[in-house]
Amino acid sequence: MQADLICIGNELLTGLIENSNTGFLARRLWSAGIEVREATVVADDREAIKNALERAMEKSEIVILTGGLGPTDDDMTKEAVASILDLQLVLNREWLERMESFFSCRGIRMPENNRKQAMVIEGAALLENQCGTAPGSMIEREGRLIIMLPGPPNEMSLMFDQSVLPFIFNYNPGNVTMVKTLKCCGIGESMLEEKIKMLGSWDFPPISYIARGFEVNLQIKGKGNAKEAAAAIEKAEKHLKSLLGDHIYGSEDDTLASRVAELLAEKQMTIALAESCSGGHLSDMLTDIPGISKFYKGGLVAYSEEVKTSKLGLDQELLKKEGLVSEATAKAMAEAARNYFNSDLAAGITGLAGPDSDSSNKPVGLVYIAVSSAKGCQCKKMNLGGGRQMVKERSSQLALDMIRRTLLSIRT
Amino acid sequence: MQADLICIGNELLTGLIENSNTGFLARRLWSAGIEVREATVVADDREAIKNALERAMEKSEIVILTGGLGPTDDDMTKEAVASILDLQLVLNREWLERMESFFSCRGIRMPENNRKQAMVIEGAALLENQCGTAPGSMIEREGRLIIMLPGPPNEMSLMFDQSVLPFIFNYNPGNVTMVKTLKCCGIGESMLEEKIKMLGSWDFPPISYIARGFEVNLQIKGKGNAKEAAAAIEKAEKHLKSLLGDHIYGSEDDTLASRVAELLAEKQMTIALAESCSGGHLSDMLTDIPGISKFYKGGLVAYSEEVKTSKLGLDQELLKKEGLVSEATAKAMAEAARNYFNSDLAAGITGLAGPDSDSSNKPVGLVYIAVSSAKGCQCKKMNLGGGRQMVKERSSQLALDMIRRTLLSIRT
Repeated sequence: MQADLICIGNELLTGLIENSNTGFLARRLWSAGIEVREATVVADDREAIKNALERAMEKSEIVILTGGLGPTDDDMTKEAVASILDLQLVLNREWLERMESFFSCRGIRMPENNRKQAMVIEGAALLENQCGTAPGSMIEREGRLIIMLPGPPNEMSLMFDQSVLPFIFNYNPGNVTMVKTLKCCGIGESMLEEKIKMLGSWDFPPISYIARGFEVNLQIKGKGNAKEAAAAIEKAEKHLKSLLGDHIYGSEDDTLASRVAELLAEKQMTIALAESCSGGHLSDMLTDIPGISKFYKGGLVAYSEEVKTSKLGLDQELLKKEGLVSEATAKAMAEAARNYFNSDLAAGITGLAGPDSDSSNKPVGLVYIAVSSAKGCQCKKMNLGGGRQMVKERSSQLALDMIRRTLLSIRT
Repeated sequence: MQADLICIGNELLTGLIENSNTGFLARRLWSAGIEVREATVVADDREAIKNALERAMEKSEIVILTGGLGPTDDDMTKEAVASILDLQLVLNREWLERMESFFSCRGIRMPENNRKQAMVIEGAALLENQCGTAPGSMIEREGRLIIMLPGPPNEMSLMFDQSVLPFIFNYNPGNVTMVKTLKCCGIGESMLEEKIKMLGSWDFPPISYIARGFEVNLQIKGKGNAKEAAAAIEKAEKHLKSLLGDHIYGSEDDTLASRVAELLAEKQMTIALAESCSGGHLSDMLTDIPGISKFYKGGLVAYSEEVKTSKLGLDQELLKKEGLVSEATAKAMAEAARNYFNSDLAAGITGLAGPDSDSSNKPVGLVYIAVSSAKGCQCKKMNLGGGRQMVKERSSQLALDMIRRTLLSIRT
């Protein structure tokens, strides 16, 4: 079973807004065993929507359209779908009343335009929208399931997870392709490829992988009925884990930061950060995790030499001798941060994010990352490319992985 | 003149990778006066690519394909294009030798697979790739311009900016639609809409806008020949600037952070940050700007109460009386940071990012943002929604705008 995605909106074609709906829906559909055949972005144009829909219905059993459910003249998704299916739009009184009271609660009269949002294709099921006035809808016709969702990602994703995904899980239980994603860090794509080849010629499900900086995401695809698919995946996962060990840090939506947070909680340890070239990016990644305040004491973005010496207490002679960007400085920053914030662990990052070097003329992208614990201090030296933001991103990624591995090595 | 975009890659359809190529190309094409008619994501499948290409060539004068230029069997973009155009692929010796020496410089022999990357459609122009082994290419046939670019965004965007965009600017100078983007912050979408209506019924070019948090991006579209389009845009921009004043903070690729950096340089002032709930996000935004180290002294992510009192010197009695999340605390954090880092300006952010509240039971999303300067200390209270990351993002956005406006108000 496969799906086509159609994202509607002029703002997507002018690049005013990034389209994250395709990626989100693709991942969710895959987790339910449904492949996405093709994804199109079309304009707020009735003919364009109808043409895309006709092509999609020809090829896929499921078609999901996002966007075009608003109250303006540019919003015409339901009209286009109704036209293709040769159905009428009918007024849903319940939804109309609900919208009217939504506005009156705020002391406003419902604009006349919004009325069209209560028009529904005859025979369609409405989908609850907890963040907006546009109802989603779903209709089955001609052996096709057509799903209409709002464009704004937060409205769309909540509606999909609450109302569509559970429905789809049960839609075609007979023959599925299930996917499990494993997250790895610290092993290059070529080395990974070699190790996977070592799995030999067993009846192994297809594994695809893609590198993102120092991380590699693996996707295992199990086919068959739900039971067979799950079993195939479980077997493959077991073998991959024995092959790759700690290089695998998690699965599905796990991130390096979420794993570090879990490990800190498990070991009941606190952490602090001293960042220079990463400029707050590492702290930002860590503080995305709910509950981290129990374990993250704080961080210092020591962006000038003055702050490194006066606040972290780094020795000016050391800095002069080894340089602001050096192993000695990274280690000193990590150890000083551990002391300064009185934490169990600390990381220090110093380097040259670019685009220019500094008075040392060391190469742009040179970064030292140190992690300090009661057991000692480890440091890695890297030469990172890709520009300023990439250097910040990659050094933070690497720091999180070093912290993760340090935590894994600690017996409690 | 319009363009169709075709992004090729299974990893885009499984959601393993987000597709940022469509947005990037759309914005670049718009800046050159070319509208994007439709954008499709297709699988690594010859028939799918050919079908998408045929449809695109029927409708648009320019077709840009990204992806499928790698050395594996899944890479078949050139083969598909050659097939549709009924042309041959020929070996480009120069590129082959270049690739061979790229590998031999690293002490490796070029894998046999890579050879196919030196195959080029007869009559096509090669496009330089500074980040990888795949050459891009461009060919004009049947009144259509077909451009093939690598999939990885960093390779694709550099190649496009260096080799394609300059070519496209001269491709159809007769009748263009040019776009200018203005960036605004601190004015809501509805208020903006009202003000734009005040422009009245002059012969005004179309203006579209979209809100992103506290920012609103405006796009002015000028049509006609290059001279007319530019003049229409200039006139509209002048009127919008007199209407909207400081709400407009920049244009095109300007960001709040880049504008703050420019103003700091202009006024020769330094800045420091004390962040709690934003967790390093504000520091991260600021340090994305090259050269900021001249003006950004440093930041403290004071994530625990202990750090607020012991490092920033906040009064424990004050915290007890007013609470960790309060106007008094935000102001105290900003003033303390200015003192601690010895900077001209400082910002302090305290709030509840969520998903849970703390012992105060104040509402999640409650944030206080303060900006301190020699002239005094201002504070804004906000109730932000959208989840933890959104609260961090929006409070940082707002802090940057408050810093920007403070800098604008300073006479030098």
